[in-house]
Amino acid sequence: MHKGTGATHWIIPDGYIPEKSSGELTSHESICVLNCSSEDAQLIITIFFEDREPMEDIFVIVPARRTNHIRTSSLAKDGVPIPVGVPYAIEVRSDIPVIVQYSRLDATQPANALMSVVAYPVS
Amino acid sequence: MHKGTGATHWIIPDGYIPEKSSGELTSHESICVLNCSSEDAQLIITIFFEDREPMEDIFVIVPARRTNHIRTSSLAKDGVPIPVGVPYAIEVRSDIPVIVQYSRLDATQPANALMSVVAYPVS
Amino acid sequence: MHKGTGATHWIIPDGYIPEKSSGELTSHESICVLNCSSEDAQLIITIFFEDREPMEDIFVIVPARRTNHIRTSSLAKDGVPIPVGVPYAIEVRSDIPVIVQYSRLDATQPANALMSVVAYPVS
Amino acid sequence: MHKGTGATHWIIPDGYIPEKSSGELTSHESICVLNCSSEDAQLIITIFFEDREPMEDIFVIVPARRTNHIRTSSLAKDGVPIPVGVPYAIEVRSDIPVIVQYSRLDATQPANALMSVVAYPVS
Repeated sequence: MHKGTGATHWIIPDGYIPEKSSGELTSHESICVLNCSSEDAQLIITIFFEDREPMEDIFVIVPARRTNHIRTSSLAKDGVPIPVGVPYAIEVRSDIPVIVQYSRLDATQPANALMSVVAYPVS
Repeated sequence: MHKGTGATHWIIPDGYIPEKSSGELTSHESICVLNCSSEDAQLIITIFFEDREPMEDIFVIVPARRTNHIRTSSLAKDGVPIPVGVPYAIEVRSDIPVIVQYSRLDATQPANALMSVVAYPVS
Repeated sequence: MHKGTGATHWIIPDGYIPEKSSGELTSHESICVLNCSSEDAQLIITIFFEDREPMEDIFVIVPARRTNHIRTSSLAKDGVPIPVGVPYAIEVRSDIPVIVQYSRLDATQPANALMSVVAYPVS
Repeated sequence: MHKGTGATHWIIPDGYIPEKSSGELTSHESICVLNCSSEDAQLIITIFFEDREPMEDIFVIVPARRTNHIRTSSLAKDGVPIPVGVPYAIEVRSDIPVIVQYSRLDATQPANALMSVVAYPVS
């Protein structure tokens, strides 16, 4: 049996889904989660905005001993996805310890730009 | 009621506002702050330089349960903005815990470059 | 005698070996490890996937008072390398404290993109 | 009187000075240090390599209440600079607490790439 590793509460203040893509790759962001444990991890994701109420209670599973590179464009609440071209922030809670990293590929220009951070572990 | 999450004192040593932009996007930096709490957060920002006295007491609000992606070009002290093309550093203090990330889009060339860090939490 | 510095267990959730390169440089990732101690460090690396069992027990040495920028394309288990174009995650364990950073150069386009994170230190 | 903030011992495992530049900007790396205190900070920098002995005892001052964005190409020991095109790692020690971030601009291609990390604080 493998134990969970990491933290159960993570924050990423700088979320942004680019509006357009050009060139060979598609602009996207990923919330990359690793679950080292022998149990599945149940995530609850909250999306915060600058000018409206948060989108709460988005549920995602990360299976035991697996990673899940979650495309933010795949996240939705009551069928409504995260809007593109709008600044937002991400909170990830998990029932067992996991590790969270956030990466963005911006392909607005034919030449891509990449950024990545390990999320801030609250607890 | 939601409690504050994160830390009240954050540092970003590498600040720089690119002098020029070309192509479709504009060079900019953002100090991205998330306030998870049910109260507004009052930030006090200090800008440090290599060759002159710091700019102190720049005030910014991050509303309750909101994120604020603060453009550094919007910050000013007595009407004077942060100079472009000059290395500087950023200190953020908040009256309640928040989380701070710093990102830069450099569009000096038509092809963009991106970088991002979670700020260093002092306390 | 120099003592070990850092932590013995590190995680990088976002691993990805780009499928192609164009232009002057080759797409690659590096796991950059510093061993400040006067003894060699013995690393055990595990690779986690989204849809298959982990690759375990990949062994790497970082000599005393040296850095080792390990190309992930050089890592293999029973002669099988990490597949390209597949999301994965990396766990690094060391018998003595070391410090781990992960960087990726994506040269899919002739214009390169770079990202880097200090890995998450578990213990 | 302002007190020192941060840590006195920092590590950056992934150092690399690109061999060439093209386009408008020059490839470079910066070790960005902020000294919030009312006293000058005395730094001692050590450079570690993959295949040779470390360069030790490189001294740099960060004045009181100032930032210093130190170009790694400006660092030298007995007149010998850090070699270009060679993987290395950086250790920064300070007599008082400071905060350290590392950024690299790679202008090998006309389109630039940027990366940045907050250094790993040992103590």
